Amino acid sequence: MPNQSGIDAVGRVFHALADPSRRAIVERLVRGPAAVKELAEPLAMSLPAVMQHLKVLEDAGVIVSEKHGRVRSCRLEPQTLRTAERWLSGQRTEGERQLDQLDDYLKGT
Amino acid sequence: MPNQSGIDAVGRVFHALADPSRRAIVERLVRGPAAVKELAEPLAMSLPAVMQHLKVLEDAGVIVSEKHGRVRSCRLEPQTLRTAERWLSGQRTEGERQLDQLDDYLKGT
Repeated sequence: MPNQSGIDAVGRVFHALADPSRRAIVERLVRGPAAVKELAEPLAMSLPAVMQHLKVLEDAGVIVSEKHGRVRSCRLEPQTLRTAERWLSGQRTEGERQLDQLDDYLKGT
Repeated sequence: MPNQSGIDAVGRVFHALADPSRRAIVERLVRGPAAVKELAEPLAMSLPAVMQHLKVLEDAGVIVSEKHGRVRSCRLEPQTLRTAERWLSGQRTEGERQLDQLDDYLKGT
């Protein structure tokens, strides 16, 4: 059995990023926090559908949302994306590692 | 609308990696090609269930499978994982970019 605690967290992140609308939301939030209304504007879907996508992203820890008065705004939690990136970065074949080493050697590092 | 051709390919990869059994298969294949039977051994599931997981990974371009006689073997297609890694690597906030620059400066690169 795989390590449930660590692996499920990464799995939730990959699941959250499998949807193009959710990736579009992440790409927008990379530029800074935004209100839900602003995030919804470029997406061709209802506000409840957008809220559902935001919930998937928030449950995975990719974003954090806060309510100020009547406005809910969202921001990225960059560390979560870095966790997924590290998993991918670790999946390098021996051939890839050798190419990386050759690349480092040619760069003189 | 997001760019369907490029974004859907990345979406299929993230979907494929959302499942812990499929990630366990990838982690095994990083060490080298393997027969389906060998991939199935550590997984607590039926062979048809394993085949279904392999199909999801193959449809996403994460793995390639070939049949030699009666044995089907699988290998990783590393470039597909690198595509997903690059998408994640590109999602860096301004704060993260500044920290990366400071890190490069302190390392003298």
